[in-house]
Amino acid sequence: MLRTLISQTPQKIGEEVILQGWVNARRDHGKIIFIDLRDRTGLVQLVCNNNASDLRNEDVIEINGLIQKRPASLINPKLETGEIEIAVSEIKTLAKAEKLPFDMGQETLNLELPTLLDHRSLTLRHSKVKTIFKIQAAIIEGFRKAAKDLDCTEIIVPTIAASATEGGAEVFKIDYFDHQAYLTQSPQLYKQMLVPVFERVFTIAKAYRAEPSVTTRHLTESTQMDCEFGFVDFDELLNLLEYTGTKMLRLAESICAPDLEKYQMPKVALGEKIPRLTLREAQEIIYQETKRDNRQEKDLTPQDEVDICQWALQKHQSDFVTITHFPTLKRAFYTKPDSKDPEYSLSYDLLFRGMEICSGSQRINDYDELVDVIRSRSMDPKNFEMYLMAFKYGMPPEGGFSFGLERITKNFLQLENIREASLFPRDMERVDIRLNTKTNNL
Amino acid sequence: MLRTLISQTPQKIGEEVILQGWVNARRDHGKIIFIDLRDRTGLVQLVCNNNASDLRNEDVIEINGLIQKRPASLINPKLETGEIEIAVSEIKTLAKAEKLPFDMGQETLNLELPTLLDHRSLTLRHSKVKTIFKIQAAIIEGFRKAAKDLDCTEIIVPTIAASATEGGAEVFKIDYFDHQAYLTQSPQLYKQMLVPVFERVFTIAKAYRAEPSVTTRHLTESTQMDCEFGFVDFDELLNLLEYTGTKMLRLAESICAPDLEKYQMPKVALGEKIPRLTLREAQEIIYQETKRDNRQEKDLTPQDEVDICQWALQKHQSDFVTITHFPTLKRAFYTKPDSKDPEYSLSYDLLFRGMEICSGSQRINDYDELVDVIRSRSMDPKNFEMYLMAFKYGMPPEGGFSFGLERITKNFLQLENIREASLFPRDMERVDIRLNTKTNNL
Repeated sequence: MLRTLISQTPQKIGEEVILQGWVNARRDHGKIIFIDLRDRTGLVQLVCNNNASDLRNEDVIEINGLIQKRPASLINPKLETGEIEIAVSEIKTLAKAEKLPFDMGQETLNLELPTLLDHRSLTLRHSKVKTIFKIQAAIIEGFRKAAKDLDCTEIIVPTIAASATEGGAEVFKIDYFDHQAYLTQSPQLYKQMLVPVFERVFTIAKAYRAEPSVTTRHLTESTQMDCEFGFVDFDELLNLLEYTGTKMLRLAESICAPDLEKYQMPKVALGEKIPRLTLREAQEIIYQETKRDNRQEKDLTPQDEVDICQWALQKHQSDFVTITHFPTLKRAFYTKPDSKDPEYSLSYDLLFRGMEICSGSQRINDYDELVDVIRSRSMDPKNFEMYLMAFKYGMPPEGGFSFGLERITKNFLQLENIREASLFPRDMERVDIRLNTKTNNL
Repeated sequence: MLRTLISQTPQKIGEEVILQGWVNARRDHGKIIFIDLRDRTGLVQLVCNNNASDLRNEDVIEINGLIQKRPASLINPKLETGEIEIAVSEIKTLAKAEKLPFDMGQETLNLELPTLLDHRSLTLRHSKVKTIFKIQAAIIEGFRKAAKDLDCTEIIVPTIAASATEGGAEVFKIDYFDHQAYLTQSPQLYKQMLVPVFERVFTIAKAYRAEPSVTTRHLTESTQMDCEFGFVDFDELLNLLEYTGTKMLRLAESICAPDLEKYQMPKVALGEKIPRLTLREAQEIIYQETKRDNRQEKDLTPQDEVDICQWALQKHQSDFVTITHFPTLKRAFYTKPDSKDPEYSLSYDLLFRGMEICSGSQRINDYDELVDVIRSRSMDPKNFEMYLMAFKYGMPPEGGFSFGLERITKNFLQLENIREASLFPRDMERVDIRLNTKTNNL
């Protein structure tokens, strides 16, 4: 007899079946023991005799049993299988579990973040925690569909680079045989190099930042969802950006609608049109609304991002707001200055529910201009040999953007900390286990 | 007026259009100059006057022109736009290209591999080189569709790890703040940890191997396409493996049929059934067929792989052959020994057109057995804390496999060297540019 998945059980009333899964919960009622069995498709109630008396939560079992209707008074409307139960005739234990270090039975796992992460291999099994990553998978799928709609070709870019190319000290060094190499800070330079090959590309790639700080919105290893387009101008880029952001989340919503219910999230608000503001316009609105005067600052603060998103939702019924024209010197070297006022650049951030989830720009596509700007930032064009070659042989006007997957996930579900939006988050203090603990153990 | 893509031009005869792209070739015929213009959708012939006399290959241009039918005698049946040409009225240069270092006009780019890679940003533009990566994108898409058919959830796994967990010295070290960290040798341990969460998972992830050797089949940074399944036995695993491998390539063939024509590759041969042989059976066949006696060896040699694939194609009309039961001690620690003869393991490699493209196994799922085997291989269970936690709390019987994307691409197109199957290949001697050159320059 083949295994039946739990989601198939309501269609098999009256049949003998084999089920396999984990003991999710156990309730003893004298001689009768109720077990909630969990597999990848859901939960179902098992009715067992004392053959279940040794079972413990998270034990892996295989059972034979008869699917029967529950008495009307015992129907559980919250469960997809709530109208049936399994009268178990035989239980085989496939793997024993140790006693759990904490209660996993609550609807929300009420653990402090460090405890949640110290036990990541276990806590990921909790229904609500797991759901974050089912939704994350749907966001990834939504991104890919949106990028393909835009005729982008998928590319695989490297993560080991010969020089710390994007500038800044926040780069991880690798011992590379007898040489020094670095982890790439983003897929940026490689996706640009592929514009003359495919014109439009997308990639889902790792980005590494050795930022020696601990915040609720940074990881040392993050996942970026990038697009890059040839033959585009700034207005088209903003359209492409907003298309990708909204399409991605609309698709994610439709792919994982039942999972989203678990988080009781409202549908993403898109209004009629995503408001677009320059940095200075946004700062002016924030000043008018809150009297906090950041009008001379070179970037939005985290609180500014919260405030301008609130404004966008109230005034434009939009969970998104696009901010443009950041100061040229605050952005990466390849960002194109606005010819009308070169102090500001053809750059943009997309904000969503209180935080920047995406940034990008029109790029400098002229070889000589690019070499000059690299020099002007005290970097050496020799370290950009392969990158510059793409420009030397004809690079069209181009631009693109990069979405942070963990950031989108965090804000989509309004999680408190970005670490909750990464299966195995890395930061300054943790690589699975806490690094100091490890050092102490050595 | 909006840009017209080159692929749309045959439907617009008689219309004035704007085209954008690269000068792919130029032929001067006295006062008339013919230009082959290239964009992401194809090539088209431009008919220009002396306004094109400054143009050079790879210049980026925008043109206005009238689409007209070619005289019957000038139709080019090899080109999708071969029945039309563009009478150009205006040319705008968007970016100039330097003179190319070699001729890019041949149907096959006849460069030595080091030259091809030294100029990677340029050589990737060549039609036949670019096609490799359009096909690679189709293979990735095929893999994802196959994995989703099998109900796998997509996961994102980390690449920075706290210890060199899979054993062996071939690991890249990272300076991680005040600690030592390592690049993961595969997504293996993390995908296993997610079996109790999603039961069936897939990931496309980087794998890093600091192998100090230069071969035609190894890269230091490769792309792995992995699946892992809970509640499976060895026979099911072989079915899942073969389903994924064949479905992936069948889908790739249908997605990129016109691109494959460029390589004149025969359709992948699947025969009636993929032959399955134990390592010892394969070695015996190789001995019978070639008189080369490797029957005592612990693995297949590269030549053995070629020979057994040839046998599979001749005897079973199959480009694939599955080899099982490698010696337990030759495989990674998590590989389950065969209870009938524990010297051999429940492991398998999938060979395709002369090379191993995938390997995997049934895994040890019992916590105590896993701790024992880690110790027996002189590793420290303390370094596997988060991994072992997944087993401590109930791990079902499970297994999976890992396809090497670059290897599949290489053998699918019968490329000579795996470096041709990576956009920016990394090896001991090269990270974009040659490392020794760089050292000399410092």
